[in-house]
Amino acid sequence: MKIDGKHYRTIWIKEGNTEVIQIIDQRSLPHRFVIEDLTNTDECANAIKEMHVRGAGLIGTVAGFGMYLGTLECRMESSLESFNRSLFAIGEKLKSTRPTAVNLQWAVDRVLNKVKRLKTSEERIQIAFEEAGQIADEDASFCQRIGEHGVEVIKKIANRKRDKPVNILTHCNAGWLAFVDYGSATAPIYEAHKQGVDVHVWVDETRPRNQGSKLTAWELGKEGVSHTIITDNAGGHLMQHGMVDMVIVGTDRTTVTGDVANKIGTYLKALSARDNNIPFYVALPSSTFDWGMKDGVKAISIEQRSEDEVKWIEGLDVDGNLTKVLLAPESSPAANYGFDVTPARLVTGLITERGICRAHEEAILDLYPEKRNVQSEP
Amino acid sequence: MKIDGKHYRTIWIKEGNTEVIQIIDQRSLPHRFVIEDLTNTDECANAIKEMHVRGAGLIGTVAGFGMYLGTLECRMESSLESFNRSLFAIGEKLKSTRPTAVNLQWAVDRVLNKVKRLKTSEERIQIAFEEAGQIADEDASFCQRIGEHGVEVIKKIANRKRDKPVNILTHCNAGWLAFVDYGSATAPIYEAHKQGVDVHVWVDETRPRNQGSKLTAWELGKEGVSHTIITDNAGGHLMQHGMVDMVIVGTDRTTVTGDVANKIGTYLKALSARDNNIPFYVALPSSTFDWGMKDGVKAISIEQRSEDEVKWIEGLDVDGNLTKVLLAPESSPAANYGFDVTPARLVTGLITERGICRAHEEAILDLYPEKRNVQSEP
Repeated sequence: MKIDGKHYRTIWIKEGNTEVIQIIDQRSLPHRFVIEDLTNTDECANAIKEMHVRGAGLIGTVAGFGMYLGTLECRMESSLESFNRSLFAIGEKLKSTRPTAVNLQWAVDRVLNKVKRLKTSEERIQIAFEEAGQIADEDASFCQRIGEHGVEVIKKIANRKRDKPVNILTHCNAGWLAFVDYGSATAPIYEAHKQGVDVHVWVDETRPRNQGSKLTAWELGKEGVSHTIITDNAGGHLMQHGMVDMVIVGTDRTTVTGDVANKIGTYLKALSARDNNIPFYVALPSSTFDWGMKDGVKAISIEQRSEDEVKWIEGLDVDGNLTKVLLAPESSPAANYGFDVTPARLVTGLITERGICRAHEEAILDLYPEKRNVQSEP
Repeated sequence: MKIDGKHYRTIWIKEGNTEVIQIIDQRSLPHRFVIEDLTNTDECANAIKEMHVRGAGLIGTVAGFGMYLGTLECRMESSLESFNRSLFAIGEKLKSTRPTAVNLQWAVDRVLNKVKRLKTSEERIQIAFEEAGQIADEDASFCQRIGEHGVEVIKKIANRKRDKPVNILTHCNAGWLAFVDYGSATAPIYEAHKQGVDVHVWVDETRPRNQGSKLTAWELGKEGVSHTIITDNAGGHLMQHGMVDMVIVGTDRTTVTGDVANKIGTYLKALSARDNNIPFYVALPSSTFDWGMKDGVKAISIEQRSEDEVKWIEGLDVDGNLTKVLLAPESSPAANYGFDVTPARLVTGLITERGICRAHEEAILDLYPEKRNVQSEP
């Protein structure tokens, strides 16, 4: 997507040096645009762990490129066996940075499996480089297809509304910053914008980490998409008064029955959409399906994070310094649940790279028939 | 209520000087406890306008005492007629500070009507002083009775839960800081705590002004009530997992049919309570009923406030200075709706100073039969 007119992905090979990966350090957004060099696997691990990068698709891709940098670090190993041992250890280091991120494990293993039987270090380096690049390209391409399918829903609403903008509410950042490009929830919005459909996005600020006001608002603004930041409390009122035409959110994990684990607060927006007859869509690459899981509310364990994320917040002070401030009595405890689960009954449809389906087991498996077998596994 | 073991109201006469009113400057809470002298009507008007004090009950009481200070300012007027003219102008000044606060108009007029026909300045000063004190006492007494009625609901749940705490979720600050004492939503909680019932309160931080994390958490902590701050996004997840036994919130305006206008985000919690079969109560002194209004969602106009409240936030930096920080791209607009309306169908009951009733016109009028006539007015 574009930043001040120039096209960027969230991760790329440094121009003129294929041994350096570059990322956008998202911790400084929206206040500063900082590009960071990743020159070794420690820097990759740190970038994931300390959340210079976040979002399922992007984390996986950083891990993929991390494994490529790993092959460079292992190239002087005395034998292919010790090469494999060292690369495996690097993979474990990368996996341990965000233990619950499924994409991370998957990307590490994908590169490892591709190279571990190759005969020379040079081949391994070359194939790891290509595989990491392919992980990135696939991620972008899946998101692009989500956009192509999802835009049809927006265009139908636009036809009905005639000259008025289509108002779309989103929660958190399932934008291009969370993937390699396009994003999941934002892909249909960017595609609509590209096609000249008049869209306006209500951006939930998304406490406690404010990925909405800090990241989604920034990327929409850079792409020139009309948007307004709101508190997480505001969506219900907007929906009651006809100011929201549809909701699109992303997901971190989706059961085969269509239950959706996403950023905490998503469930409340789904309830409000249902109460006001507003379509509620979830956009996802199929990698976020958990094919063996049936009951999301019961089975998906919800990460609890530090209470400091609720009690403290960072922003830019009037002198332009990034500053943390305390928002609550120091002695009051806070709880910080990272996600909630929206039951399938509240989801109008799932927008995947293969098309749109109902949030229902049969409809999902019709779109992914090769996964029917996963069902019967214990 | 208590602060570090000492009993306070939110407003009182200064010891040893009946011509000075004292308040807690709530802008500095929870970080600093500042008592402020109000020595004239300009200071009273400013304290309301700049939100040193907020909350329907407290604003009305400050206005009442403001009118008393007004009688002191008018005592040198040459005639009772010019006294009245000046006092009326002071009343208008006070009313204009928060034009939508119904209690403010009511308190000003109540003192004005009581004194304007009295024969001497001395009498007027004396009666204004007494009337302002009575407004304060009535406010505290109504809240206390809300507590006595509401505690019965909590005790019923406590009996069912045996040795486990009753988990109560609240939104915003309908605490004693919003009234003269006890609060509305908090009154049943404080009463339960006093009676030795094991209660724990989930405190919604309540963006954008964070009255939950800044004020409710502070007052519960000072009173020794167990509580945990959560983001406004978290309540749905807690309710899905049996971690909330009841919800109690306040209200700024309640229709005779039981629709409830309260801080933005209340509606989302009511939806979630309904979806999870959790009782949702609204606590209110009857002064917040709008006896002539039937459809809250359609008829109650919702105040829009500055976008700066969403994009900027104040807290205590690591050096202990109160600092404002920017949370969003400077160029992104924000919308800031102050309230939303929860339809009566989502409200389990209204806890008033006269008892608890269903959120339904007939039930409300059974409790306030003298208001049946207001109905038939145009």
